[in-house]
Amino acid sequence: MKATIITIGDEILIGQIIDTNSGFIAKALDRIGVEVSEMISISDDKKHILNTFSQLQNKVDVVIVTGGLGPTKDDVTKKTFCEYFDDELVVNKEVLAHVTQLIEGYFKRPITQMNKDQALVPSGCTILHNKVGTAPGMWMKKENTVFISLPGVPYEMKYLVEEEIIPKIVREYKRPYIIHKTILTYGQGESLVAERIEHWENNLPDFIKLAYLPNPGRVRLRLTARGTDKEVLETAIEENVKSLDAIIHDIIVGFDDNETIEVAVGKLLVQQNKTISTAESFTGGKIASLLSAVPGASSYFKGSVVSYATEAKVNVLGVSQGLVDQFSVVSAEVASAMALNVKEILKTDYAIATTGNAGPSKGDSDAEIGTVFIALATPNGVITEEFNFGQPREKVIDRGTIKSLEILQKEILKNV
Amino acid sequence: MKATIITIGDEILIGQIIDTNSGFIAKALDRIGVEVSEMISISDDKKHILNTFSQLQNKVDVVIVTGGLGPTKDDVTKKTFCEYFDDELVVNKEVLAHVTQLIEGYFKRPITQMNKDQALVPSGCTILHNKVGTAPGMWMKKENTVFISLPGVPYEMKYLVEEEIIPKIVREYKRPYIIHKTILTYGQGESLVAERIEHWENNLPDFIKLAYLPNPGRVRLRLTARGTDKEVLETAIEENVKSLDAIIHDIIVGFDDNETIEVAVGKLLVQQNKTISTAESFTGGKIASLLSAVPGASSYFKGSVVSYATEAKVNVLGVSQGLVDQFSVVSAEVASAMALNVKEILKTDYAIATTGNAGPSKGDSDAEIGTVFIALATPNGVITEEFNFGQPREKVIDRGTIKSLEILQKEILKNV
Repeated sequence: MKATIITIGDEILIGQIIDTNSGFIAKALDRIGVEVSEMISISDDKKHILNTFSQLQNKVDVVIVTGGLGPTKDDVTKKTFCEYFDDELVVNKEVLAHVTQLIEGYFKRPITQMNKDQALVPSGCTILHNKVGTAPGMWMKKENTVFISLPGVPYEMKYLVEEEIIPKIVREYKRPYIIHKTILTYGQGESLVAERIEHWENNLPDFIKLAYLPNPGRVRLRLTARGTDKEVLETAIEENVKSLDAIIHDIIVGFDDNETIEVAVGKLLVQQNKTISTAESFTGGKIASLLSAVPGASSYFKGSVVSYATEAKVNVLGVSQGLVDQFSVVSAEVASAMALNVKEILKTDYAIATTGNAGPSKGDSDAEIGTVFIALATPNGVITEEFNFGQPREKVIDRGTIKSLEILQKEILKNV
Repeated sequence: MKATIITIGDEILIGQIIDTNSGFIAKALDRIGVEVSEMISISDDKKHILNTFSQLQNKVDVVIVTGGLGPTKDDVTKKTFCEYFDDELVVNKEVLAHVTQLIEGYFKRPITQMNKDQALVPSGCTILHNKVGTAPGMWMKKENTVFISLPGVPYEMKYLVEEEIIPKIVREYKRPYIIHKTILTYGQGESLVAERIEHWENNLPDFIKLAYLPNPGRVRLRLTARGTDKEVLETAIEENVKSLDAIIHDIIVGFDDNETIEVAVGKLLVQQNKTISTAESFTGGKIASLLSAVPGASSYFKGSVVSYATEAKVNVLGVSQGLVDQFSVVSAEVASAMALNVKEILKTDYAIATTGNAGPSKGDSDAEIGTVFIALATPNGVITEEFNFGQPREKVIDRGTIKSLEILQKEILKNV
C-alpha cells in the first residue's frame, strides 16, 4: 500500500517555514505498513494542485494533502477538490454547529460569514471531524485512489491523523508489515563500516534493505524489512542483526527505534530512579527544554539555572568570582563548578553544565569562537570535556546540547 | 526562472528525519529571484529518480538534488546521473587530491577504495568543489534544464549553495526580482482581518500576491511582488502597504522579513537598553532557549531559573512554601512571585514567569490540564494572565512560550 503526502503553501517554497507535517504523517503511516513513496510541496495554485492530483491518480492508494483549508482567498484546497471530483460545496450541519460552538462559546465573539464558510465541504466527501479547530478533514475516493485533505496547523493535522485517518486506514485496508531496526555504531566513519560489513550486506535477503545514516563520529545502520508475514520479517531481522553484531561488535553502542536522545535518557533515569538538573550558559536552556518536553519528565527533571551572564553564574549558582577571574568563564573549572553547584542546589543525582562561546562574536570570555566545555556531575564526582564546534552559532548550540545528553547517557549506561 | 528541489533518502519518507535542506536552498534561490515551483522527497531508488528527472526535463530551468552521494551502496545519485545523461564515471584528479588530503592529512588514517571512489564523477559534469567534505557537487545540463547534485550533509550542502551555486546562477542566468514584505498583525483572527481588508485585497495589482499566515492570536500578511523592474515592484509594495496601514492601523504591530518574535523582542530590548530574565516551570527553559539563540542576546538576556519541581521554586527562586500551599503551585500568585523574584535575583528590567500544567497527567497541582499562568514583571510592577491551552503537551509548551514573548513585546511597545 502506497501513499503520497502533499503540502500546499508558498511559505514552504520560499523557505519561510520548514514543513514538519509531512514527517509526522510519514512516521504514522510507516507504523501501520503504508509506504510513503513521495512527499511533495507545491504552491497554493489550483492548476498546479490539479496536475499533481492527476499524476498520482491510480499510481498510489492514498494521497494526503495538508494546508490551504483556511477561510481566506489564498486557501484553495476545497475549491480544487470540488473541481477534481466534479462536485460542489454544501453546508455540513454538524461542522457548522461545531464551528459556531467554537467561535461563540469558546472565543466569545460573533460568528462571521467566513467562519460559517468553514462548514462548506464537497457534497461527496466523508468528513473527518476536527475537534480541535474549525477546518474539517475530508476523505474522497476516485477510482483506486483516496484523496484526504487536512488543515496545515500542526496540532489539528496531528489530531486528525491519529484519531481519524490511521484508524480508518487500519479498518479499511489490508497492509503489509514494515519493520525497522536501527543499529547505532560509534567511532568509525561510514566508508570504513561499509567495508567491514560488505560481505554481510551482500547476503541480506531481498526483502531487507540497508541504509547508512552518517553523523559526525557515528553511523546508524537502518534495516528495513517489508512483507506480509510479520514473524518471518522479525526472525530475519533478528538473525541478521545477530550476524552483524558478530562482525562489528566493537563499535555497536546500541539499538533504537528512532527514539530521541532525551526520551532515551528519560527512560534510563526512570529505570534507575535518578534525577537530573542542568546549569546552562551557551546552550541557553535548550537541554532543559528538551528534557522537560518529554511527558512524565517531572519525575526526574528538577530544574535548571540558565546562567547566561557571568553575574548569574556567580549570584545564582554560587560559582566564585575568583575562579572565573583565574580560569575565565569559558573553562573546565567553571563548567565543573557549575555542575557541582546546581546538583547541590537542586538536590539531584546528576547535573549537566555547559559554558562556551557560541559566537558569532566573543562574549564575556576570550575563548575562541566555537569552544565549549561540558561538565557532568555524577553521584561519584564530576567529569568535563572540551570541544570546538566551529560555527555557526546554531550548530554550536545544537551540537553542545546533543553532546551533553550523550555524555549523560554514556555515563548512566556504565551503571546499568 | 523556475527551480525544483529534490531530496533523496528513505529516512525522510519514513519520518526518521525532517528535511531542512530544501528550505535552506529555497530561501537562497528566492533571494536571487528564482522561483521554486516544487519540492519533492523521493526514495533512493534509481528508477524513481529517473522518472522524476524525466518529468521535470524542460519544465523547469534548474533541478537541485540533495543526498545519495555517500560512498555506500545505498547512495545511487551518481550512477543515476550517468544513466540519465548517458555518461560514465571517470576519476577527477583534483577531487581525488582533495579527498586524499582530507582523509590522510586531517583524519590521519589510510585512504580506502571507497574514499577514492568519491572522486569518480560523470565525465561531462562541471565540478562544484566541496572544500568542507569528500563528496563534490555536480552541475550537468540537458537541453533547457540544469541538474545539480549536492551532498545531503547540511553544512556541506550549505557551503556549496552559498559559495558555488548561487554565484554561478547569478553569473549565467537573467532572473526577475522577487520582493516580499510581511506585515504583522495582533489581536484579530484570520477571517476577521480578511473581511476588513477584502476591498483592498481585491484591488491588488496582478503581480502582487497576498498570503495569510495565521498563528494563534496573530496573523502575518505576506505580500509578494514578482517582475523585471525592481523599482516598480518596490513602489507598488510600498503604496499598498501604506493603504493597508490606513485600514488596519489598529492591529499592525510591525513589519518584517520573516523575523521571529525572539528576534523582534531582542531588537526592542537593545533599542531601549533593557534586560530580561525568565523563571520557567511548564515551558521548561524554552523561552530562555529562544531568547538566547539570537546572536548578541548576551547584551540583554541575563539568564533563567527553570524551576520545574516545586522545591526549585521554593529553594532557588525563594517563592514561599506558604504561598504555594495557599494558592497551589499553578496560580497567578505563584507566577507573580516567580517573576518578581527572578527579576530581583538576576537584576533585570523585565522578567517572564510561567507555571502551569502541560499534561498529559496532573503534576504537583490539581489545576486542570492545559491551565497556565504567565506573569511579566516590569519596571512598574507585575501583570499576570491565565490561559487554557488544552492539549497536547507540545502545544501547551509552544503556545505558552510564544504567548509569553508576545506579552513582553506588547508591554515594551507601550513604552516606545
